[in-house]
Amino acid sequence: MGITRFYLPTKIIFGSGSLARLGPEARKIGRKALLVTGAASMRRAGVLDRVRGDLEANGVRVSVFDRVESNPRASTVDEGGRLARQEKAELVIGLGGGSTMDAAKGIVLAGSGTGPIWDYVEAKATVKGPVPSLILVPTVAASGSEANSGAVITNWDTHEKRVLNSPYFFARVSIVDPDLTLTLPERPTAQGGVDIFCHLAECYLTAGKPSLLTDGIMETAMRMVVESLPRVLDRLDNIEARTRLSWASTIACSPFATLGGGAGVMTLHGVEHPLSGYYDIAHGDGLAALLPEWMRYTFPVRGERFSSLGRKVFDEADGILATERWLERVGMKLRLGSLGIDLERLEELADCAVRTAPWLKYHPRVLDAAAIKQLYKNSY
Amino acid sequence: MGITRFYLPTKIIFGSGSLARLGPEARKIGRKALLVTGAASMRRAGVLDRVRGDLEANGVRVSVFDRVESNPRASTVDEGGRLARQEKAELVIGLGGGSTMDAAKGIVLAGSGTGPIWDYVEAKATVKGPVPSLILVPTVAASGSEANSGAVITNWDTHEKRVLNSPYFFARVSIVDPDLTLTLPERPTAQGGVDIFCHLAECYLTAGKPSLLTDGIMETAMRMVVESLPRVLDRLDNIEARTRLSWASTIACSPFATLGGGAGVMTLHGVEHPLSGYYDIAHGDGLAALLPEWMRYTFPVRGERFSSLGRKVFDEADGILATERWLERVGMKLRLGSLGIDLERLEELADCAVRTAPWLKYHPRVLDAAAIKQLYKNSY
Repeated sequence: MGITRFYLPTKIIFGSGSLARLGPEARKIGRKALLVTGAASMRRAGVLDRVRGDLEANGVRVSVFDRVESNPRASTVDEGGRLARQEKAELVIGLGGGSTMDAAKGIVLAGSGTGPIWDYVEAKATVKGPVPSLILVPTVAASGSEANSGAVITNWDTHEKRVLNSPYFFARVSIVDPDLTLTLPERPTAQGGVDIFCHLAECYLTAGKPSLLTDGIMETAMRMVVESLPRVLDRLDNIEARTRLSWASTIACSPFATLGGGAGVMTLHGVEHPLSGYYDIAHGDGLAALLPEWMRYTFPVRGERFSSLGRKVFDEADGILATERWLERVGMKLRLGSLGIDLERLEELADCAVRTAPWLKYHPRVLDAAAIKQLYKNSY
Repeated sequence: MGITRFYLPTKIIFGSGSLARLGPEARKIGRKALLVTGAASMRRAGVLDRVRGDLEANGVRVSVFDRVESNPRASTVDEGGRLARQEKAELVIGLGGGSTMDAAKGIVLAGSGTGPIWDYVEAKATVKGPVPSLILVPTVAASGSEANSGAVITNWDTHEKRVLNSPYFFARVSIVDPDLTLTLPERPTAQGGVDIFCHLAECYLTAGKPSLLTDGIMETAMRMVVESLPRVLDRLDNIEARTRLSWASTIACSPFATLGGGAGVMTLHGVEHPLSGYYDIAHGDGLAALLPEWMRYTFPVRGERFSSLGRKVFDEADGILATERWLERVGMKLRLGSLGIDLERLEELADCAVRTAPWLKYHPRVLDAAAIKQLYKNSY
């Protein structure tokens, strides 16, 4: 059964209205903060102004870096890192979706002054200077970055979208306030829901020696996503359903979901990353387009896991058909062709997947460049 | 839905064989350790000698305090605290069951030198000196003390068994090796299993606004206990079933079990504590004797929770009957009378419960001294 580790030193404050805790929590950590955000959406909802005001009222001076794009780039992270250093920020606050939170993570490392973030990705740099502390405030239920120590960063020169893990990427505090997701429009809400479902389903379906505990947690969380997402899409301000999506998001890509050990690997994520790394498409769209074929490819070696998925999560016999019907229901039945991916580039993308996602070799059925290219083709 | 917090900064290393990690982990924390244990059982299995050897081989000097009794007393904790101070221990390692781990927790506070532990229980003392770090190694699946910041300590002069919470009671590292439970005889194994079940069932059954996530985790963990305990009793060295019991133990009385919020209160524990505080009986025996009547008393205000318990955990319609049958199956169908409790002392015990467990006021049906006395009587 092997040895399992759980370590998550982040204080998680969860619930409708919890954003009010940000000022007092930040104050305990430092007096100079760099607030990292993705601009437009935050400003529009008035959240940025409110947060800034709260922080200053708590004696925390705030600089703002609002240049984070989706699929955040190494160059953006380095720019944020320079600003953090220049402002002598003791604290970096990431307020936004997964891209913003991952950029904020990168900025604490880049802000320590040793080198550009890509040197860390390539394991060429180690931390020397002091590293600012991190607070994360997700505004989208999707990545779950608030409860793990990973960040996904894209090198736009090489189109590599890579995962970087660091102990400095554990937030000191994460504030998960589902109220912040109420204004998120349908499409990004559905993209986020698919991302959550995939975090769980990939680990669940590829597990070789499943654990009762891990299965129980994952089945619970998948059911929460599967049931809540359509309800949110029916009524975007359904706070109860939004709250369930936020919880599922926070635990899906975190040590909670794999608490009992025995989990598999996120190989669909590895196969998707080149798509958003080359074409800058929404990560959730890429996942949705690939999910059914990734399932069909995996089914022959994990049949009984797919039956469990069907029975325990969808109350249906066939996990793949149930998933496809759910994707259709939430408006996410997509094909790679319609996302603008070029047919003649599939081989290059498959090679990139193998290079940037070394964990693909743990997939229970051989997932080499040829298999990935075929998977892309079948999803086209 | 309110605001929920999760905070558990302990690194948990779980699995068969994980005890081998103790030496290297201890070495990272300090070079002088006080090893706290309950004597006989540990020596018998040769575990104490092995642990001591491993620590010294990793450059950690070890003093041993092996005087912890069950229902650990404040006087014992103070004695251990004096030894920790005298030996200038940077690290306290609790190796044993819940009593030993809770004593080790008390010893880190008492070892800081500010005052006797009961002053902390009565909130008369605050930490001034440096506090040694804590490592916990459970050898019994029961209390779950390795994953929370509480300790239960008994004042034998007043017979008060009280719960003390402190941020210093979070272990830096907890090593949960189910191999260590393999030599535990039937009776304490069953007592531990009942303790785990009660940690979960009390919170589950008294919940007012249940959360899907919390329910899912608790139902999974309860099912693990309900199914695994009889298997372990059939064959004491069944490592797979022992492993499930250990996992259930680690999460039951921890922030994991209540992750999604909405959990109720451990009022059966509050009602039991005077029994083991006065009579020094095994905590698990007291819980088992009181559980059916505590359920009957709670049923009228939480009927639907009992149906869920029956359906989701036992695959039966009636949660109370199912629980009683399970207690019988694991040899834990007990009465207070046969545990040596005096009939004429029930009023004094009920008064003590109200005094020492202030959270009884949150029980969903009035649980005052008169109600508790009646509950004792019905369980006699």
